[in-house]
Amino acid sequence: MRALVLDGGSARVADLPSAPLPPGEARVRVLLAGICATDLELRRGYLGFRGVPGHEFVGEVIEGPAEWRGARVVGEINAACGACPTCRAGRRRHCPRRTVLGIVGRPGSHAEEVLLPAENLHRVPSGLPDEAAVFVEPLAAAWHVCEQVNVAGRAVAVLGAGRLGQLLARSARLAGGDVLAIGRDRRKLDLLRAAGIATATPQDVQGRRFPVVVEATGTPEGFALALSLTEPTGSLVLKTTTHGATPVDLAPVVVDEVTVVGSRCGRFEPALALLAAGAVDPRPLVDAVLPLEEAAGAYERSARPGALKVLLRPGG
Amino acid sequence: MRALVLDGGSARVADLPSAPLPPGEARVRVLLAGICATDLELRRGYLGFRGVPGHEFVGEVIEGPAEWRGARVVGEINAACGACPTCRAGRRRHCPRRTVLGIVGRPGSHAEEVLLPAENLHRVPSGLPDEAAVFVEPLAAAWHVCEQVNVAGRAVAVLGAGRLGQLLARSARLAGGDVLAIGRDRRKLDLLRAAGIATATPQDVQGRRFPVVVEATGTPEGFALALSLTEPTGSLVLKTTTHGATPVDLAPVVVDEVTVVGSRCGRFEPALALLAAGAVDPRPLVDAVLPLEEAAGAYERSARPGALKVLLRPGG
Repeated sequence: MRALVLDGGSARVADLPSAPLPPGEARVRVLLAGICATDLELRRGYLGFRGVPGHEFVGEVIEGPAEWRGARVVGEINAACGACPTCRAGRRRHCPRRTVLGIVGRPGSHAEEVLLPAENLHRVPSGLPDEAAVFVEPLAAAWHVCEQVNVAGRAVAVLGAGRLGQLLARSARLAGGDVLAIGRDRRKLDLLRAAGIATATPQDVQGRRFPVVVEATGTPEGFALALSLTEPTGSLVLKTTTHGATPVDLAPVVVDEVTVVGSRCGRFEPALALLAAGAVDPRPLVDAVLPLEEAAGAYERSARPGALKVLLRPGG
Repeated sequence: MRALVLDGGSARVADLPSAPLPPGEARVRVLLAGICATDLELRRGYLGFRGVPGHEFVGEVIEGPAEWRGARVVGEINAACGACPTCRAGRRRHCPRRTVLGIVGRPGSHAEEVLLPAENLHRVPSGLPDEAAVFVEPLAAAWHVCEQVNVAGRAVAVLGAGRLGQLLARSARLAGGDVLAIGRDRRKLDLLRAAGIATATPQDVQGRRFPVVVEATGTPEGFALALSLTEPTGSLVLKTTTHGATPVDLAPVVVDEVTVVGSRCGRFEPALALLAAGAVDPRPLVDAVLPLEEAAGAYERSARPGALKVLLRPGG
């Protein structure tokens, strides 16, 4: 099968042998796959990654348990052992022995096919188009913030108007937050306003403080700015993962008794429900749909300032 | 009156004019005052501090509202405006217009006398000796952690066995935590074990993870070690304030969805109750009681590795 392979700086589409199917897993033909900031970080060398990246997808089961065959699916990206204390405590997304689709020990979705445990799969409702369903994973990650921090009735600053920031602002508003999305790119702010969300630039909010701040700039400098916007005893939700150490002054966290909440992945059920109900329509965020063969160029396009979501279509 | 004056690197005991008493405030003759890590930071130039430091004390009201005159008291260190939205929301310790005893805009307790709003004062029960009552402020700061994070029935690692770490470990155990105090100094670990608290060195706990970690090392490097000890979805309570930026890798906060809880001051009521009931006896932590005139030397003693609490007695 054809797949994008990252190999310490190089990115090329290559023929790979089709892997044998482990018991309990399903082979999914990828219909559409998204490129996110983590993929771009992996390409730059985060985690010393080598292999097939990609963890956002919608696809069709072509091999595996009979009840799944032919189903159009999305898939949770953390494959847990199911047996360790963390799994037994219900925190399977944090299983220390987990593999993570396209990130840790499991080839990803920027390929014609992908393997996942059947228990990770969710059926996509028939009315939901592929172009929306492919957003389940990042929308789940965005909605998760609203399960970690109460935003209802509170002023929420979402810092960063990119791929994830767009979904975070929509999620926080749906969860009842009084959302202000903060970014620099005019087109991205326009998209937010078109979705009914108030926007501002970082200059506009100088000196303002918010009880909830969500940091999704994707930059190492985002934390300091987010902290300066968080009011005493407020919550700062941290979404950006960058590799390496950044100079940070943590004294304001202590003096202002800020709670910094790390946030990674979320449950698929609420994200699928929001998409199926039309409460979130992510399709205006799609910049381009490109064939898998053009994946290297798609990554470059995705990394450009101003870019939003670039999708890969292995089918052509 | 005599007072310790810090002035950009120099520390000397000097004669200062007795300040006039503002309405609603009380003048307190200091009986005993403690030196803490923040004082040592102020001496090193934190916040560009100049003036009289000190925020831990027990004293006797010598001027002010009639109902307070003659009372033996301790005093909350944040003097709030009482009128701003933060104060009206009940978060007076975070009033943006506050003064803070011996730290921000209000001369401190390393002096013969100190002024505080009467509403900040708490009577000391008659059975409680000065040498214990002087610990109310740091014990309140330690107990506050148990009001921010549920420790009952959970494994709690307290990192740092110094002045604050000693009180944090005792507080977390009283609040029902399964406490492991982690430090390097043998005498400090002995004191913890004498109080019935299990101890370990940083080497002993390599590879272990805890659902709750309290960072009280007083060093910029403490955060990274504390983070490495925090299990996924766990809580890391940050007590250390250091000035300036330190290189920090925040990626594990996001990937492991750790909650970092900044923690500064606490309510005096529970701390006074714990001391009055004998649930915490801080007196074994006292290294020395020195006259105010020897304050500069007392600071030096307090800054030595292995030092615990040094008290100043303005009376001689």
